[in-house]
Amino acid sequence: MLAAYAVSQSSSDPLSGLVVGERPDPEARPGWTVVDLRAAALNHHDVWSLRGVGLAADRLPMVLGCDGAGVDADGNEVIVHAVVPSDGWRGDETLDPRRTLLSELHDGTLAEKVLVPAGNVVPKPESMSWETATCLSTAWLTAYRMLFTNSGVQPGGTVLVQGAGGGVATALIQLGSAAGYRMWATSRDEARGQRALEIGADRVFASGERLPDRVDAVMETVGAATWSHSVNSLRPGGTIVISGATSGDAPAKAELTKIFFKQLRVVGSTMGTREELAQLARLVEQRRIEPVVDSVMPLTDARDGFARMVDGDVFGKVVFTVG
Amino acid sequence: MLAAYAVSQSSSDPLSGLVVGERPDPEARPGWTVVDLRAAALNHHDVWSLRGVGLAADRLPMVLGCDGAGVDADGNEVIVHAVVPSDGWRGDETLDPRRTLLSELHDGTLAEKVLVPAGNVVPKPESMSWETATCLSTAWLTAYRMLFTNSGVQPGGTVLVQGAGGGVATALIQLGSAAGYRMWATSRDEARGQRALEIGADRVFASGERLPDRVDAVMETVGAATWSHSVNSLRPGGTIVISGATSGDAPAKAELTKIFFKQLRVVGSTMGTREELAQLARLVEQRRIEPVVDSVMPLTDARDGFARMVDGDVFGKVVFTVG
Amino acid sequence: MLAAYAVSQSSSDPLSGLVVGERPDPEARPGWTVVDLRAAALNHHDVWSLRGVGLAADRLPMVLGCDGAGVDADGNEVIVHAVVPSDGWRGDETLDPRRTLLSELHDGTLAEKVLVPAGNVVPKPESMSWETATCLSTAWLTAYRMLFTNSGVQPGGTVLVQGAGGGVATALIQLGSAAGYRMWATSRDEARGQRALEIGADRVFASGERLPDRVDAVMETVGAATWSHSVNSLRPGGTIVISGATSGDAPAKAELTKIFFKQLRVVGSTMGTREELAQLARLVEQRRIEPVVDSVMPLTDARDGFARMVDGDVFGKVVFTVG
Amino acid sequence: MLAAYAVSQSSSDPLSGLVVGERPDPEARPGWTVVDLRAAALNHHDVWSLRGVGLAADRLPMVLGCDGAGVDADGNEVIVHAVVPSDGWRGDETLDPRRTLLSELHDGTLAEKVLVPAGNVVPKPESMSWETATCLSTAWLTAYRMLFTNSGVQPGGTVLVQGAGGGVATALIQLGSAAGYRMWATSRDEARGQRALEIGADRVFASGERLPDRVDAVMETVGAATWSHSVNSLRPGGTIVISGATSGDAPAKAELTKIFFKQLRVVGSTMGTREELAQLARLVEQRRIEPVVDSVMPLTDARDGFARMVDGDVFGKVVFTVG
Repeated sequence: MLAAYAVSQSSSDPLSGLVVGERPDPEARPGWTVVDLRAAALNHHDVWSLRGVGLAADRLPMVLGCDGAGVDADGNEVIVHAVVPSDGWRGDETLDPRRTLLSELHDGTLAEKVLVPAGNVVPKPESMSWETATCLSTAWLTAYRMLFTNSGVQPGGTVLVQGAGGGVATALIQLGSAAGYRMWATSRDEARGQRALEIGADRVFASGERLPDRVDAVMETVGAATWSHSVNSLRPGGTIVISGATSGDAPAKAELTKIFFKQLRVVGSTMGTREELAQLARLVEQRRIEPVVDSVMPLTDARDGFARMVDGDVFGKVVFTVG
Repeated sequence: MLAAYAVSQSSSDPLSGLVVGERPDPEARPGWTVVDLRAAALNHHDVWSLRGVGLAADRLPMVLGCDGAGVDADGNEVIVHAVVPSDGWRGDETLDPRRTLLSELHDGTLAEKVLVPAGNVVPKPESMSWETATCLSTAWLTAYRMLFTNSGVQPGGTVLVQGAGGGVATALIQLGSAAGYRMWATSRDEARGQRALEIGADRVFASGERLPDRVDAVMETVGAATWSHSVNSLRPGGTIVISGATSGDAPAKAELTKIFFKQLRVVGSTMGTREELAQLARLVEQRRIEPVVDSVMPLTDARDGFARMVDGDVFGKVVFTVG
Repeated sequence: MLAAYAVSQSSSDPLSGLVVGERPDPEARPGWTVVDLRAAALNHHDVWSLRGVGLAADRLPMVLGCDGAGVDADGNEVIVHAVVPSDGWRGDETLDPRRTLLSELHDGTLAEKVLVPAGNVVPKPESMSWETATCLSTAWLTAYRMLFTNSGVQPGGTVLVQGAGGGVATALIQLGSAAGYRMWATSRDEARGQRALEIGADRVFASGERLPDRVDAVMETVGAATWSHSVNSLRPGGTIVISGATSGDAPAKAELTKIFFKQLRVVGSTMGTREELAQLARLVEQRRIEPVVDSVMPLTDARDGFARMVDGDVFGKVVFTVG
Repeated sequence: MLAAYAVSQSSSDPLSGLVVGERPDPEARPGWTVVDLRAAALNHHDVWSLRGVGLAADRLPMVLGCDGAGVDADGNEVIVHAVVPSDGWRGDETLDPRRTLLSELHDGTLAEKVLVPAGNVVPKPESMSWETATCLSTAWLTAYRMLFTNSGVQPGGTVLVQGAGGGVATALIQLGSAAGYRMWATSRDEARGQRALEIGADRVFASGERLPDRVDAVMETVGAATWSHSVNSLRPGGTIVISGATSGDAPAKAELTKIFFKQLRVVGSTMGTREELAQLARLVEQRRIEPVVDSVMPLTDARDGFARMVDGDVFGKVVFTVG
């Protein structure tokens, strides 16, 4: 089958280890299902794998990709859930310390077929396009869990998204807006701020700008650079949900006194459960949300998609059509 | 001041005890504020007061009304919160066993002025009309708490509203739709079912009809007549939120075995807190929700409004303009 | 291996279908583990299986038993978790509509060996006896989830247990007392009431007796006979946790008006998760709780144990030693 | 009346501003109640007030004290709740940004009488001594909220207390032990570690020592010095509850990447609600907990008690008897 896979890793030239070519078809396995993919999509995770972060070198070659949608062995249209729990795990699979994401231990979704545990698919709503469906597995799932499981915000509340533009931040704005939250965003870049307004943000502020009101929650994916601003922007009892720290966590003050005195909550969040993915799919269908897509191309052109990610010039998802 | 107030009570002819006429202005009181009302609205509670239910006869004459919006003593545009806690109460005021609603112990909102504790107002969003604002105090607040505090449903989930048409049911459909829930409703009446679809319901079913899927939550305001259907319609772990039981609770089976085996939750809900009212107002403004209004008339015509309620022929709120 | 198993079913003479004799050893299976049992214990569930309730006739012969503790294939001392989720299930396994208990689809614990999924064991604390460990799998786990996951009561709160004496009720009293709750119990039988006091209840009341204070939560395993008393005994905002309805649910009034007006919560609860079982084991060890044991006998005498259960004359667990 | 009050403030010599002498009796006020105190107790907060932290100079002279128990105007034996919400506040009073503690705006409890809002007392259980009752208002209430409202730990779970010895840390160990938690503590001082074991800690570790297992929650009152150890000691999904930061928050790394990847929760906590105080009182009575008391002396000797606090040589509460 055709696949985009890593054969070697390089932090300076990640594309050097990427091959788009033939890999053996996955073999059927009891309790697992083979999905014939119709679409897949890229995440920064895929570039990190090529840079040598998160993916062990002794597991190469490895098919990349966490986002995917297709038709399973029983003929059902499904969205792939990328979080694979260890054998015998019970409960929330994102808390399993031995969980892996697709493309870390098992081959991923940038291929014509992917083999996943039977519990790692959810129904694709009938009216949903393959391009939309494949966007949901990772960044959108992460945003869903941050906003709806972890923020504690009720409809009518105000949520600040630090750093409009990234895949998760974009999903946060679109999802929060669809669920009756007032979405505010910060951006260092005027054009990205403008795009944020177009997809549902109510207001956009410059990074670090003092807000007109205290917010109920902050969605934090930036890290050290915005941490103190996040703490200061919250109302008493408010929540920071943190997922990722792209600017690092070294220089950040912990701001412990403010956290204690204002009774703030800081909640770490990563990926989401299969059940959250199923709810997300229903919400996206229900409210006719169209995930922002940067570009759509056939899987054969996967190298071009990776190049866009590496250049950092994307707003929204890079989607591959398959077959 | 002009007011609509009860002077006597009759279960058979509730309007016989209603006077629309002059009452003394409320006197200022430390810790309380006088609101110059701009709009008020009716609830079934007002008719029950005239029927002799809930309002003690020795408190007559009593100005009726729980819904109101106007300008407080400091010049702020506010929405009135009708739940008055007892002195020294701490925590969720709807759990105070000695709480009262306006018009039960203190004069209500169907007047040119109302005296309320300083804690019983929330800001009216600037762009919101007085007609919209006054609809929120009671039925809409009840619906907000049912859906967003008590149902446990996340966006993308499916909620069944038993008995489309009532004030709370209408608010539930409009609110749930605005917050990304899939709203289903049952109705015994085709025209009301049609109206439910127009205001945001995804599907409408005949009362007692078997649903195509199990739902995440049922909003139950009917009671005995729909109780077993509610229990049977839920997925494992689902929730029934119950607020009111207009068809009575005598003949209902408790369905204890199903509740236990499917691990259902049944949650009683009544009115809502001041903080929930504030969030509701922000949500209604944020998503430009327009509460369904049956009719708008000046407070001088309050008797006509009561007559509509008694006749049972309303769909949405009966609103009075004041001043 | 030696086992106690069902070969036929009879509602009038359940013991007629019980055989205590040889069964083939379980065969190893990938992802599953064989536990060499050291102790097992009885539940009413085992008698129901013999009566033809819950266990399909076409699955006979079936080794009975949900409670067990022993040594797994890796040499670890473990307690067996009896809730077996279906393949691919994610999240809380007690909510899986296709879950089974041991002895419903897979052979149970009343045997020298039992084959269970690798995820269906938790560590036995080193200092805990086999007799104590084997009591925890079912009735104690049920009680743990009712009290600590579902009641919402904080330490210092008051909990009413309806019907002292049953296995779950006994566990509730011992657990709640160990966790800082004030435990009250009702009983129709003076001797059982006395026993309840001895194992940690603060006060015991006659069935249906009016309580001196409203309680924070009621643990309800009786059903129709106590339901109205349970509803009436709660403070506003209080919780009834219901697990089982031994007196049936047919005649119970739903009491919907009181549930709504006092904002009560009714929460169905059945069994518990593997993680809850692990926490329970730590609690029992930590506080040196000794489950009330009715009698201990070798598995060869299993028929005597079943006879005690059928006669209804037990207070606490009937434990079998194995090997 | 006799009182211990501040007349001036000095960071270097806090006792210089303390007077133990006569103050006018409080005057009755509608909605407030005068409590005839029987006992009071010290907190670090009282020393901070004398140092010029938290108490505005223009409010002097001010009677100090947040801990108190006595007899209210209606003859009820009560414990004083020190959190005074602003007029019209609704909901959790610890989240009111305009709340004050007794001795910040209104005279405190180190006196023969104190005037408090009617909502600021809870019943003292009949069998509880005045010395025990007065310990609960502040440090014990703080510990109760940290453990039982904010930690998310269920009975059987393991909780680490950073810095055994302080008033809150002592209360945490005694409360957690009474509620079925496994309590671990760290200490820089061997004697204090030994005392922690005596009052209920299961194990004590040196500050910063690697723990044998990951814990479910950490109770953090130290701050920067222990922060990284707290983050590293938690299991995935675990919780740090932070109340106070006696070692400052400046040098602490935020550890954002670990918080996100392990999905930790950090929850700020300060004081507690009136309802939590009432539950605490019931728990302390129920389990016969005896708060560790450093010393008991008559209020006339209050200066000696303050001197002990300033010297930092206390383990447990300094209690004053009154009248």
